[in-house]
Amino acid sequence: MSAPLDSWRDTSTRTAIESYVSDVTGSGPAALPPEERIAVFDNDGTLWPEKPMPVQLDFTISRLGAMAEADPSLRDTQPWKAAYEKDHHWMGEAMVKHYHGDDADLHLLMAAVPKALAGLTVEEYARSAHQFVHDSHHPTLQRTYARCGFAPMVELLRYLEGHGFTTYIASGGDRDFMRPFAGELYGIPPERVIGSSQQVQYQEMEDGTDVLYKSEMDVFDDGPEKPVRIWSRIGRRPTVAGGNSNGDIPMLRFARAPGRAALRLLVLHDDAEREFDYTAGAEDALERARERDWTVVSMKDDWSRVFAEQ
Amino acid sequence: MSAPLDSWRDTSTRTAIESYVSDVTGSGPAALPPEERIAVFDNDGTLWPEKPMPVQLDFTISRLGAMAEADPSLRDTQPWKAAYEKDHHWMGEAMVKHYHGDDADLHLLMAAVPKALAGLTVEEYARSAHQFVHDSHHPTLQRTYARCGFAPMVELLRYLEGHGFTTYIASGGDRDFMRPFAGELYGIPPERVIGSSQQVQYQEMEDGTDVLYKSEMDVFDDGPEKPVRIWSRIGRRPTVAGGNSNGDIPMLRFARAPGRAALRLLVLHDDAEREFDYTAGAEDALERARERDWTVVSMKDDWSRVFAEQ
Repeated sequence: MSAPLDSWRDTSTRTAIESYVSDVTGSGPAALPPEERIAVFDNDGTLWPEKPMPVQLDFTISRLGAMAEADPSLRDTQPWKAAYEKDHHWMGEAMVKHYHGDDADLHLLMAAVPKALAGLTVEEYARSAHQFVHDSHHPTLQRTYARCGFAPMVELLRYLEGHGFTTYIASGGDRDFMRPFAGELYGIPPERVIGSSQQVQYQEMEDGTDVLYKSEMDVFDDGPEKPVRIWSRIGRRPTVAGGNSNGDIPMLRFARAPGRAALRLLVLHDDAEREFDYTAGAEDALERARERDWTVVSMKDDWSRVFAEQ
Repeated sequence: MSAPLDSWRDTSTRTAIESYVSDVTGSGPAALPPEERIAVFDNDGTLWPEKPMPVQLDFTISRLGAMAEADPSLRDTQPWKAAYEKDHHWMGEAMVKHYHGDDADLHLLMAAVPKALAGLTVEEYARSAHQFVHDSHHPTLQRTYARCGFAPMVELLRYLEGHGFTTYIASGGDRDFMRPFAGELYGIPPERVIGSSQQVQYQEMEDGTDVLYKSEMDVFDDGPEKPVRIWSRIGRRPTVAGGNSNGDIPMLRFARAPGRAALRLLVLHDDAEREFDYTAGAEDALERARERDWTVVSMKDDWSRVFAEQ
């Protein structure tokens, strides 16, 4: 039983995917038993857009704004000030400065993220994240975030699962932000979502128990941390990995074990008309893809559609 | 499709298990959708014996002995000295002192554990742990560790899975020590083994990549850390939890969500003839079980056999 790759054009990229899956599910030397068919995918920029800013950042800004709404003393301090005043320019400049090597404003923003969740229970955060992606529209794509999953990638997840693979998200984004919608958007349940995490603590009350967020980060799951978290969560080395940026290089390299065929996919954002066109932050990954046997996925050339119909 | 509970006698304990499963899989008010049927079980003392010492401690001693064999300079320092000289008395006294409030020797031992793994790759440790449980005999039970799984608990895992539950190990023992044999002993794959962990790091070589152990602990997964690790790994609150000691109390409490029926099992070691008879370290849990609706599993009364035939 295998799902179709309807949104993939008949290109060498599609052939590379189908050949790999045919090889590892066949009886030849590349055959893999089902328990070793593990596929991991980055989220931001791989399964959904990451421009003009990561969706989680938009969520965080809305939480910071709500905090400043409730507590006037926060309104003179960045990043609450910008969030409260809906000063998208400050936020945008923080990202531009980051790309030019000045991380001061981005650090202010990142430091505020854990504070935006501290004291929430895991269930409260889940409800909040779920509601956000359903209620909020992407700034330019004319759809809610809940409708922003890349249709060809969702098809690829089902196609792999139909061939015995177990699929995981392995993202630099916050694990507990993604979990509440990963089932609906990607068909991936919470136990298969790997990502960055904030520290949580267990609390006992008279009538029950909770797990709540502390105000510190636990793990920032990017770059060399990705293989570490993948191992910690799965206990196996993947053989399929998909990403789109330099932070995915270790994960893509890790997917290749000695003597086993691997499929490494790198999503190239070259489609200004239907999504975005940029390579900033992906230069090293693209160079490595050219040198090695990685498969570059051109949104423009390889996908007949980017998003599902509304 | 449901596996039988052949090794469970027809007692009120068995009835409690069957009634709970019948309730949550039925169409009444306690019904749970399959994705919320999550069952977590401690390992040492719950799925296999923990006396006269945890199996992992026996493994660690054998590794420390091998280290002292290779490096004579270690032979004058505890715990390598005791491991090298096969001084079981020192090890045993460390445990006795621990129960009397003197942890000095136990701390020496615990501090050596990460050093026993530092520099190994995750694959090397897996091979080593797998070989150990197959080659080493339990000191008194006349069987290898690989044959020490409690047969009724293995039946219970299959019974729950047959009713749509997803089963996990959630143990204070080392996650990567358990993973290599959890499939064979308990039918639980590595991605469903939660436990303590040592820090690992990703490493790139010219011809590949590895994940290796550092010399520090990451998480000691006991007591209030158990609900935290369960949430982190699964992203759901379990409704069935099984344990045997005070360190399992938070996990058992966490299994009860508001408005949802829960099954909490506490294995009581009261069978000196077939296994061991002790309550040390389980006093608080047993008291709580009496006060609340936890189900105490008497090895002596509720199990017709403890281990599978040789």
